Amino acid sequence: MSTPRCLALSGGVGGAKLALGLLHAMPPEDLLIVANTGDDFDHLGLRICPDIDTVTYTLSGLANPTLGWGRGDETWSFMETVESLGGEHWFRLGDRDLALHVERTRRLGDGQSLSAITAEVAKRLGIAARIAPMSDDPVRTIVETPDGPLAFQHYFVREQCRPTVTGFRFEGAEIATPGSALTNALAGEGPGMVVICPSNPFISIDPILTLPGVRDMLVRSAAPVIAVSPIVGGQAIKGPTAKMLSELGLPSTALAVAEHYQGVVDGFVLDRADSDAEDAVRELGCEVLVTNTVMKSLQDRVSLARDVIAFSARLS
Amino acid sequence: MSTPRCLALSGGVGGAKLALGLLHAMPPEDLLIVANTGDDFDHLGLRICPDIDTVTYTLSGLANPTLGWGRGDETWSFMETVESLGGEHWFRLGDRDLALHVERTRRLGDGQSLSAITAEVAKRLGIAARIAPMSDDPVRTIVETPDGPLAFQHYFVREQCRPTVTGFRFEGAEIATPGSALTNALAGEGPGMVVICPSNPFISIDPILTLPGVRDMLVRSAAPVIAVSPIVGGQAIKGPTAKMLSELGLPSTALAVAEHYQGVVDGFVLDRADSDAEDAVRELGCEVLVTNTVMKSLQDRVSLARDVIAFSARLS
Repeated sequence: MSTPRCLALSGGVGGAKLALGLLHAMPPEDLLIVANTGDDFDHLGLRICPDIDTVTYTLSGLANPTLGWGRGDETWSFMETVESLGGEHWFRLGDRDLALHVERTRRLGDGQSLSAITAEVAKRLGIAARIAPMSDDPVRTIVETPDGPLAFQHYFVREQCRPTVTGFRFEGAEIATPGSALTNALAGEGPGMVVICPSNPFISIDPILTLPGVRDMLVRSAAPVIAVSPIVGGQAIKGPTAKMLSELGLPSTALAVAEHYQGVVDGFVLDRADSDAEDAVRELGCEVLVTNTVMKSLQDRVSLARDVIAFSARLS
Repeated sequence: MSTPRCLALSGGVGGAKLALGLLHAMPPEDLLIVANTGDDFDHLGLRICPDIDTVTYTLSGLANPTLGWGRGDETWSFMETVESLGGEHWFRLGDRDLALHVERTRRLGDGQSLSAITAEVAKRLGIAARIAPMSDDPVRTIVETPDGPLAFQHYFVREQCRPTVTGFRFEGAEIATPGSALTNALAGEGPGMVVICPSNPFISIDPILTLPGVRDMLVRSAAPVIAVSPIVGGQAIKGPTAKMLSELGLPSTALAVAEHYQGVVDGFVLDRADSDAEDAVRELGCEVLVTNTVMKSLQDRVSLARDVIAFSARLS
């Protein structure tokens, strides 16, 4: 495997959108997307990897644009029947989506690595870029709340992010080995650029940065590390980022996200709506690009990707 | 649990048809159907119990009348997608059927017994009769062929019964504990009657009879044990029974089935097409009922069930 020109670190929906833009903005073999696996969990006996799957479905054109998860060409017979049998149905699994979880669980049981399975599925679905988990070892995000810890999907899906967040733990992260795709990309000459996608910094990116050695490798990398703000005008485009910032006693601003990444990133991408934060972000010691970061259309995604690529060229 | 008036031993399709007839011919609480689990296997990481499920779907009215397995109200998105991901697709699992396998596998993983799960599913699906596995312990039917042993579903589904059969083994049967529903039914005063449904004697009924103590309990039971021939006019209504008899060097006749059950059964039910075998079967030491045994309609099933019940009353 050649070293990718672009290493993108991604969570789910927002990250996958920019990953799709990057895929259209460069030769696909230049792109490696490393997805968070802290959201992974075992449910109904199946291994579910929400962020890997959102990236995979988005890059293969199979994603459900309305729901923001799962597949667009979905049917729901399985879930209806699980419910009628008295099974757990708070985590919605479509019939086609389920095939991926069953097949992945079977292959994991046969001793295949999550990296190998993820790569094989991407290939099967016609994705020419590489997708890799942040680690083949289990890392499980725990959300701390005043009522005690919650497994991530219990917080995120079952409780619909209602509990107040007081902190996070990434169980297993300290003894997990970063995935070989990730470490190979950062080793040697390194990638041409690293993009921290506009994903939730606490629950999508921090699990990756917490893996042994990853933060150091990013800091030491010759490649510019560029983060795109997931906060625009004080709001998260999707998900609980703004709510979390506020509950953690931080301002719900792009600047707060930039501060969170201080020391790791060389460049930070602000939306035009947050251009007043440009100087403050620059004072954190990183370059700033102000552009349109809200990705409604495919064209928006490709434009943002091109802006980020040009920004990185400027920082190299 | 009260002792059932009728204990029915069943495999898949043919057995389930008579079980449905019995359900219509007596108060449902009087009926216990004990299903073969020698066909069970683990596939795609899921526990599949074909005979339990065929009985359950048939008694709940959900069975697919065309296929003879699975549900009538089925969709196939899952299987299509497994195939597109390069997964194993020789064993067809519908989206709704899959829910049962996933839910069962999850509950088994949680430590619930197959008996408890089977009873709960039957209840959920509105079945007032009792359905139980022959054992909660694993028993796996192995088909011996000139090219070596085949796991049952590999023989039955993947190879479509093409290999020549030289014998059978029921792995685990000698150390399996018969299910408590089965042993409770045969203990004490015993059931009012035992019906060996028109299932394949080698692969559907023998696994049950091979369980420690079961054959003895049936022989010693005060209740009449009545088998209904799965062979009519030299042919099996469904499945490889006639082919197996022939490959094992036995005539493909109802008489050969009666001989197979000799010593266990008190009564044997022949189809009118086989009335010429009446005397020969009687000479094996059991009573004979000649009636219509081909069950095309629900009325056929109920009629046969009533005939068997009347026959058993005569033998008591």
